[in-house]
Amino acid sequence: MSSPPGPPTNRAPSNTDLETTVAELKQVVETFVDERDWHRFHNPKNLVMSLAIETAELMEHFQWLTPDQSTRIMEDPDTRTAVGEEVADCLAYLLALANKLDIDLAPTLRAKMIRNAEKYPIDNNEFTHK
Amino acid sequence: MSSPPGPPTNRAPSNTDLETTVAELKQVVETFVDERDWHRFHNPKNLVMSLAIETAELMEHFQWLTPDQSTRIMEDPDTRTAVGEEVADCLAYLLALANKLDIDLAPTLRAKMIRNAEKYPIDNNEFTHK
Amino acid sequence: MSSPPGPPTNRAPSNTDLETTVAELKQVVETFVDERDWHRFHNPKNLVMSLAIETAELMEHFQWLTPDQSTRIMEDPDTRTAVGEEVADCLAYLLALANKLDIDLAPTLRAKMIRNAEKYPIDNNEFTHK
Amino acid sequence: MSSPPGPPTNRAPSNTDLETTVAELKQVVETFVDERDWHRFHNPKNLVMSLAIETAELMEHFQWLTPDQSTRIMEDPDTRTAVGEEVADCLAYLLALANKLDIDLAPTLRAKMIRNAEKYPIDNNEFTHK
Repeated sequence: MSSPPGPPTNRAPSNTDLETTVAELKQVVETFVDERDWHRFHNPKNLVMSLAIETAELMEHFQWLTPDQSTRIMEDPDTRTAVGEEVADCLAYLLALANKLDIDLAPTLRAKMIRNAEKYPIDNNEFTHK
Repeated sequence: MSSPPGPPTNRAPSNTDLETTVAELKQVVETFVDERDWHRFHNPKNLVMSLAIETAELMEHFQWLTPDQSTRIMEDPDTRTAVGEEVADCLAYLLALANKLDIDLAPTLRAKMIRNAEKYPIDNNEFTHK
Repeated sequence: MSSPPGPPTNRAPSNTDLETTVAELKQVVETFVDERDWHRFHNPKNLVMSLAIETAELMEHFQWLTPDQSTRIMEDPDTRTAVGEEVADCLAYLLALANKLDIDLAPTLRAKMIRNAEKYPIDNNEFTHK
Repeated sequence: MSSPPGPPTNRAPSNTDLETTVAELKQVVETFVDERDWHRFHNPKNLVMSLAIETAELMEHFQWLTPDQSTRIMEDPDTRTAVGEEVADCLAYLLALANKLDIDLAPTLRAKMIRNAEKYPIDNNEFTHK
């Protein structure tokens, strides 16, 4: 396969949330699972347990903090890295689950937020989450 | 197919994971929280509890299923909708947390998957998740 | 019906934590499961998911409270009842799991607290839970 | 300090679930927390997060097992010890929470099981947990 003439046009895909599609992130996880032949372990029941376990590992970082302290958790570089990694693990299992259940996340999220907006109208002054 | 004459017409952003960036999904959640002035409740400690609660609501659908049954959970249309909504709620809180902690999810996930790949090399036959 | 001579031996078992053994509570749960033939669903994997789900339902009551508010959660009678019921559900699944895994909880707890005491000596001023 | 006359009355408290009251177990945990002056961290919001975290650590042992494998989890001595310790940690936080919220667990559990029995009558053949 020859490379195209002229200036390179194939720049590496940019890495930020602004330039990464949800499908690209799903593919990162799918490839990882494929390469290890882990689909045999990744039934939806197991994956949802995994998501719960990773969420608890993330929660551990916030367990003994006051709410105020929790807003400053990213100020310490080591904690920042550790929290980022736990968030990534949660996201990875959520994407693996979406892959397995064939869920198109973007329209599913948008549809749910519309339902949430009906449940919690903007003018409603009373706070009742959930 | 020819494109319409004149200036671009601002077609509605496509709705699928293929055409939605992570930043766009984050913005959907951010706008929702902004409009309700819910930032006062959304400190990271509370948000991570919320993620754990939504994850458990998702887990409820799988609680009494065998692993095999769990692979067929999307066959029933009502359950399919309900599971999709719980996945969306988990994703919404994960995105709200990423917004609050200023985490760029795409590079964070990619970096974590590289670390995971070092931990679980492809050739490693022994399965030891985690 | 006359009561037996001599010192009373048949007093109705008292209902409080002071007079109820752990084994009695385990039996309450075991009988409930037996009567419904639920052992076929109650494998340990499912029971531990159930414990996680009930714990999240308990957590929901605390989700948006400040730590200070959480110390006063039992002041409202309806919330008091609801929180008590969620705590009971958590305990029921923990006892069901102990029944299933044949765990003698009292010595297991005491042994673990001795290990915890070695890990966190009393004189240690630095707080490092976990 | 002199010991009382007559037959020994100070036998070591027996260690099994058959001979340990719920109140005695609660006291084991209360003493541990007292001695370390940890009440300042143990508000109910934090304790319920702790229970969720310990439950997830317990769940980790079951994450990749089939339901059948989970029924044999106690056969391996090391795993048996580890699972017992995680169950003990869950119980410790549940007891700490009951101490903090002043919940008498035995009557609360019995009352909840009566409500559960109304919800799931014995003759009901259809299984619908929850």
